Order: sequence, then C-alpha cells, then structure tokens
Amino acid sequence: MSIAVDTFFLNPDAPGTLQAQVQQMIAEGILSGRFHTGEKLPSSRRLAAHLGVSRITVTLAYTELVANDYLSAQGRSGYYVSENAPVPPTYSPRPRAADTVDWTRAIAQRFTGGDTPRKPGDWRDFRYPFIYGQADPTLFDHANWRQCALRALGQKDFASLTDDYYDRDDPLLVEYIARHTLPRRGISARPEEILITLGAQNALWIAARVLLNRRRRAVIEDPCYHAQRDLLTHAGCRLTPVRVDADGLPPDAIPPGTDVIFTTPSHQCPTTATMPLHRRHALLERARELDALVVEDDYEFEMAFLAAPSPALKSLDEDGRVIYVGSFSKSLFPGLRLGYMVGSEPFIREARALRATMLRHPPGHMQRTAAYFLSLGHYDSQIRRMGAALHDRRRAAEAAIAEHGLTIAGRGVYGGSSLWMQAPEGTDSAELATRLQADGVFIEPGAPFFAGPERPARFYRLGYSSIPTSRIGEGIARIAAALRDAPGATDRPAPQAMQHS
Amino acid sequence: MSIAVDTFFLNPDAPGTLQAQVQQMIAEGILSGRFHTGEKLPSSRRLAAHLGVSRITVTLAYTELVANDYLSAQGRSGYYVSENAPVPPTYSPRPRAADTVDWTRAIAQRFTGGDTPRKPGDWRDFRYPFIYGQADPTLFDHANWRQCALRALGQKDFASLTDDYYDRDDPLLVEYIARHTLPRRGISARPEEILITLGAQNALWIAARVLLNRRRRAVIEDPCYHAQRDLLTHAGCRLTPVRVDADGLPPDAIPPGTDVIFTTPSHQCPTTATMPLHRRHALLERARELDALVVEDDYEFEMAFLAAPSPALKSLDEDGRVIYVGSFSKSLFPGLRLGYMVGSEPFIREARALRATMLRHPPGHMQRTAAYFLSLGHYDSQIRRMGAALHDRRRAAEAAIAEHGLTIAGRGVYGGSSLWMQAPEGTDSAELATRLQADGVFIEPGAPFFAGPERPARFYRLGYSSIPTSRIGEGIARIAAALRDAPGATDRPAPQAMQHS
Repeated sequence: MSIAVDTFFLNPDAPGTLQAQVQQMIAEGILSGRFHTGEKLPSSRRLAAHLGVSRITVTLAYTELVANDYLSAQGRSGYYVSENAPVPPTYSPRPRAADTVDWTRAIAQRFTGGDTPRKPGDWRDFRYPFIYGQADPTLFDHANWRQCALRALGQKDFASLTDDYYDRDDPLLVEYIARHTLPRRGISARPEEILITLGAQNALWIAARVLLNRRRRAVIEDPCYHAQRDLLTHAGCRLTPVRVDADGLPPDAIPPGTDVIFTTPSHQCPTTATMPLHRRHALLERARELDALVVEDDYEFEMAFLAAPSPALKSLDEDGRVIYVGSFSKSLFPGLRLGYMVGSEPFIREARALRATMLRHPPGHMQRTAAYFLSLGHYDSQIRRMGAALHDRRRAAEAAIAEHGLTIAGRGVYGGSSLWMQAPEGTDSAELATRLQADGVFIEPGAPFFAGPERPARFYRLGYSSIPTSRIGEGIARIAAALRDAPGATDRPAPQAMQHS
Repeated sequence: MSIAVDTFFLNPDAPGTLQAQVQQMIAEGILSGRFHTGEKLPSSRRLAAHLGVSRITVTLAYTELVANDYLSAQGRSGYYVSENAPVPPTYSPRPRAADTVDWTRAIAQRFTGGDTPRKPGDWRDFRYPFIYGQADPTLFDHANWRQCALRALGQKDFASLTDDYYDRDDPLLVEYIARHTLPRRGISARPEEILITLGAQNALWIAARVLLNRRRRAVIEDPCYHAQRDLLTHAGCRLTPVRVDADGLPPDAIPPGTDVIFTTPSHQCPTTATMPLHRRHALLERARELDALVVEDDYEFEMAFLAAPSPALKSLDEDGRVIYVGSFSKSLFPGLRLGYMVGSEPFIREARALRATMLRHPPGHMQRTAAYFLSLGHYDSQIRRMGAALHDRRRAAEAAIAEHGLTIAGRGVYGGSSLWMQAPEGTDSAELATRLQADGVFIEPGAPFFAGPERPARFYRLGYSSIPTSRIGEGIARIAAALRDAPGATDRPAPQAMQHS
C-alpha cells in the first residue's frame, strides 16, 4: 500500500528548514500511527512537486529518516516505512471524565493570586515596546553566543553537557564569577561562597527559605519588585514594607524585630534610586544593631553607562551579614535563567542543599556556554555596546519627556534600562496602559510594585532596553497624548518626584 | 610600553581551541588589570614562537580581540591594548574578616543533613562504573542533539532562546508531549494540564509543596528514591514509609488519614518491581476510599526493551486524582534538567504559579532543543538504540551474576537500567562499595534508600547504563571476589529475593 501524496502538507508558518519540516511531517505520521510498517512513501519527485520544494530537499529528508530507521530504502523501488520504525501506542487514551477530586480541599498551599502582572508574550508586536527586562536582538551578540554554545556542545564538554552534577556547579563559571565579576563589585569570594541559581529570582527565593520562617520578620522596599513580595508572601514570614525615598531604603525606618532586609541599593527597583555611600554604611550599622541579615539584589549593575557603579553593599560588609545576588538576565538575556548568590559558607551550604533538593542544578550546558562567553571577553564587549546604545536611548527618552512636559520620578544616576515615571494626580496608569496598547505602546503600570491596599496608581515604568532609539520620541509623544485625554487627570504635573502618595 | 612575551603561558589541560585559549589569556590579562591601555602586545610571530603555536592562530585571536575592542591594530606597528578596552575595577576587594553573624541562629530552616548520598563527580574514572542515571556517550545521539541545538540557536528562534517566558513554557515542547509522549502511556492531556519542570525531582518537589502542609500525611515507598524522602522531610508534612514487596507498593498497607501517595508503579525505585494491573486498580481504589491523591513517578518508562510497558497508573485514573511525573533525564541526559508533570487544571495552575515564583521557567533554549530532537524523530531512534544496548548489558550482567552466584533481589520485567542486588546476610554494602572503589568498581549501597533507623545494609544497586558490555563480566567478578572477602558475611546466599530485613 502506498501513502497518498495528498496527505502531506507544509505549514507555511512552521519553523525550521524545509528539509527538517518534511522529515518531521513523516516522523510524526509514523509516530501517530497514521503511516504503517511496510507502506510505501511517494517518490521524492512526486512529493517534491506536491509540496513545491526541490527534490534534493525531499531526498535528504528521506535519507535522514533511513539513517534513523524510520524508513527503509529498497533499491530503485523506493522508500518504505521501516519494520524497525517506532510503534505507535496500541491503546488509545480514554476520554477524560470529570474530576471527582475536590481541588478546593486537595490543594494544601495556594501560590496563585500573587501581584506579579502577567506580561504579554506578544510584546514584540508592539511598535513602541517600553518593556523592561527582555533581550534586544540588535544589542545581543548572538553570533558569539552561538559560537560559545557550539563549543560547549563539543566532545570535550560532553560531561558538562550531560552529567548530573547533583549539588555542584560548573567550576569554570564559578571561577570566572569569583575572579572577574565579583572583584568589579569590590567583592572577594571563594568558590564555596558562591552558588549558581536559576536567575536572581531563584536566588531570592532560596535566601528567603533558608533565612525565614513563620516567626521571623522580613523588611522589603515599597515599592519593590512584585515577584520579591510574592515569594516572601509564600514563605509565610512576617513582612514589613518600608517606603523608599529618593536615596532608596531609609535605615531608620527599619523596625525592631527585623531578621532579614531585602534591598536593591544600586538601582532601587522600580524607582531606580541609587543609595549613597553614607546611607549604605548606615544601613549596615542598622542591620548590625538589629542583628539582621541583608539580601542585596544587585540585578543591574552592568548597565552603568553614566558613571562607574558604586561598590556593592556586600563590599562594605565586615560581618558576613550581606548576601549578594547577581544576575545575567539583564546583561545577557532572561531566558538564560542564570544568576548567582554570594554569602558566607554556612549559608551557601544550606542554600546549596535546598537547591539540590528542589531542582539539582541549572543545566550544565547553559552554565558552560555562559562561562565561555564571559571568559572569551564577549561579555564585556557586549556590556560596552549595550551601555552605548542604552545611553543613546536614555538621551532620546529624556529629550522627548522634556519636550512633552512629562515627569520623571526616578532615574538611576549610573544608568540602568528604565525610567520611573509619574503621571498627573488622579491618573490611573493601568487604565492608561490599556488605552496605549491600542495605540501600539507598551508601558508598565506602577501599582503592582506597591504593597498594601492603598496603592499609588499614577506611576509607571518606561523600559528602554527593547525599543529602538528612533521610535522613542514618537512613543513618548503618544503617551503624552494619551495623558492629555486621561479621564480625571489634572493638567498640573505633580511637584515632588519621589513622593509616592 | 610592551607586554613581555614571557608573561604568556598556555595551560596544556585547558579546554577549547588554541585560538580561543590565546584570546582568553589576553582578555583575562586586560580584565584583571595586568595589561593596561596603550601597552603593546608581542608580535604575532614572537608570541606564536613562544607558545609553540602557528602564527595564524595568534593572528586570528588578535583579529577577534580587535573586533571586540580589546585591542587596536596600528598599521604595521602592531597591536595595542585598546583605549576602549574594559577597565578593571579601581577598588580592590577588601580582605574578608571573620563573620560576626551567628549562623546557627541566623539559619531559619536547615536543608543539609539529608540522606541523599553524594555521588562522585569523577565516576568516569572508574573502570567498572555501575552508576545509575548518567548519560553514556556511546549511546547518546550527540551529533543530532548538536544539530537541534544549532537550529534552536538560529535567528528564527531568537525569542525562544532569550525571552522571559514568565510562567509559560515552550509551546512546541508541550505540544509534542501532549500529542506523542503521553499517548504512549495511555494518557490524554491538554496543554493546560501539563507543566515543564527542571527534571522529575523538581516536579516531585512542586507537587509536595502544593499538596502538603504540616497537618497532611504523605505515604512514600520504602525503600524509595532518597531525594524523594528528603524533599518530603523539608516539606514538613507527616510522613509514613510503607514497605514495598515484589509487586511494589501494597495498597492495603496505606494507613487511614493519608492525603498523598508517592509511588513508582512502572519501575519501583530502587527495587525495579513492576506493579501488576490488578494492584494498580486496587491502589486507585484505596486512594478513592481515603480521598487521597497519587503522585506517579514514571521516571524510566522509555527503557522498556523486554516488553511493552504497561499503561501508566494515570491512564486508569477516572477521578483526576493521579498526578503524573515524567522525565527526560534517563532517556536523554540528566544535565538537561527537563521533566514534566500532568494533572488536573486546578492543580497545574497552582504548580505553575509556584514554579514561576521560585524559578520562572526552565531555560527556553533547552526546551526548544528538546522539542526539535523529539519532533524530528531522533528521540525515538535513540530510545531504540539505547534499548538494544541496555538489553545486551542486562544479558551480560545476568550471565555474570549467575556464574558468580550473586543474588538479584529485583529486576524490572520491562527492562530498566539497573538491577537491585542482595548481598549475603551480614554484608555492609557501604563498606563493600568503599573496598570496591580501590578496585575500580563503583556500586551504590542500598541503605540510603531505606527509611528509619534500622536500615537493611546488605542491598546494593547495579546500574548498567554507563558501563560498556565488555566490562560488565569483569566488574561483577570483582564484586563477587570482594563479597567473598567481606568481613562478617556468611557464605550462604540469602534465600528470598524481595524480603528486606
């Protein structure tokens, strides 16, 4: 029996080469049980004509499928589904009945209902994407990343690709971070004091679990990164949000009884405030008084194109009470899911045991590729290129903001990749964001960053890491136009930049 | 000023091409502050002669460093450290003082001290590695994995590589699992009922957190996968180990008040027992009586080379009370860190929210590469090749075991990649394993799989997924010889294979 050529269709939107698509189509037909052992495939000439592809494409796909034992070639007579082809399942899935489980009772701990807004997956379709924290294809050194990945896929690195590391990490990556990355933040650490994590968020999560329980109290900044608040809510500790000012977290406002302080001194998230040196010392002094630990989220220090970043809080720490969290999400790309934490050995030992139990280790291949990209110097080159581009974008944004009379509530003195904006009194920035979407503009409403029931609604964040310089002016013009049409907004811009009320 | 050629050394053990090593050496010199802006590098001829490499190697490295702005080329006069080269940190890390933090007090939750044994990182140096769960370079289709990874590194897949997916997964991978993998286990699931995890262990961890708390009771198999016991200990629930028999977990022994049952019906871990169909029905019936949920760890169903695997427990589940966990660690490689869980939508929704908070998502690149490898048919080809090789190894192991009079306590009826062995009464298999290490043989002692203070010491596991067939006979001969010399062992082999006492 022959398989009719009409059963083959190419999906014009499918990814991959034509050869891969043909190969995949046939493999799927066999695996799903549509094509059976011994059945003859259309000749390469017929299938090529039917699909409108070249004959060599079909021939190469057939050859590959023969090598994989899906097809067998029988001399001049053609290609057949092989006797050794994978057998589709003999039992068909039974139709699902309605659950009898009462999930309201069965779920012991709820994790939904957090404040983290769901960002759109289709942000690339926005013409003016003021989105924060995604990679820009024009700034990322894709070619060299690919080279490093290829090298990490080589025979020499077979073990680092495939091995179960248990609780260990790639020693090359750890060494690079210890010798080159941390010294730039004024931090000296031995490998036993470093743990690689699935991004900075995973590091913050692990720190919360090791350092907190129901009886302990954590201080977070208000406003702060929403996922930070969610993960502490899940940890079930007592939680005190402390309002930040133009210099970041005020140490005096940290209440007695605090056990752990979560802070973003270099670029406060989301206001971008930079904590001055005297306040850093005061914060450490306050932590010492309370015998509290400090978790420092230094998520964006590489984006310092205006001035050299000040040394990390951790570099001033003489007690071992600061746990430092770094990330490659902003400087490389967030889909990498690589970050790291630095702390005293007794802490890292517990963090490592927790990580091993919950997920073992970040994939070896991602760690090794990053280690190569860093150690070959591509990383530093990219940071400089990104810094130059972000500087341009920042200038364009500031010029347009001035031109249209909008108000900046916070801008990192070292650089960064976003501005914290303040709309006129009475503006609901969530409503503003919705209206702007129809106009091709993506902005992030500010309310989800704030704690408590009375959230200031008029702030919003403008990320400039994924929008071309040439579109920034028009994007901001559209925001200004939308603000003029905003229901309930007054015309008077708010006077005080850092006062959140 | 010129940089002396003598300051350059190649490390003969360094990974990567010579060109990459030269490039890395120079980049590191600049980043660490040893080489300064404006300093002249040795001529390519001199450096090549000094290092004993070809001149073109050095020239290519220099050219690449010029492209990255580390060096500048000044006509015929040579190469200089560029003015735009990255600047080393201006402050040096301060020497670390002793911690004043009292870590005994500061750590709120401990995660160390679990039962999971630390496996050796150098297992490849053993001549007879009866290790379980690592990839074998002779069985893994490295070439096609590399091809798929390359494709996933292409321009078309830039978003899947770099994007922050938030709580989402790669739709290609989810679709493949839903349409091709799960039907082979008799399971029908929609994408909303599937979550990709950082390996099966991460799935078990997530299930434990969503379904358990301090008041709820979990049943685990005894013996069981040690990390499974560790993660439930961390979850802080009440925990009841139930001794397995030759058919796996006995439903009658599950006590009243049980909320969640963790089980490995297809290949009990570590005894390899397969639960017969009538017991699967009885287990589901018992779960229904108790209104308990069942977490099914189907970690090795692909390794069924002796007979088709029986349908998953989940395929018999009419209530929605089974949560199914699958893994690519055994069939691809553990360093991939990809697994998946299938359950009713209300459960997966909570699991997804927890995963998003703790780590966001498994790296997009790993998901996309696996999706290609699966959908192009390489995965099924590899499973068949692995099955044939494991079958050979299993035959070799069984023949040698019979020849030397050793006792198999459990062997999976469908296949698998390990045998559960029973040494004579009085043997301490941990002591045996230590003695065998000196003889180049790696075996896994069985005691850590058991719960409680009275752990049977005479069992051990022989994995055959990473040892060549040709070495199995000699490896087992050495185990037999070591057993003959064992202190305290009787000569009589134990009579009952599955009785753990």
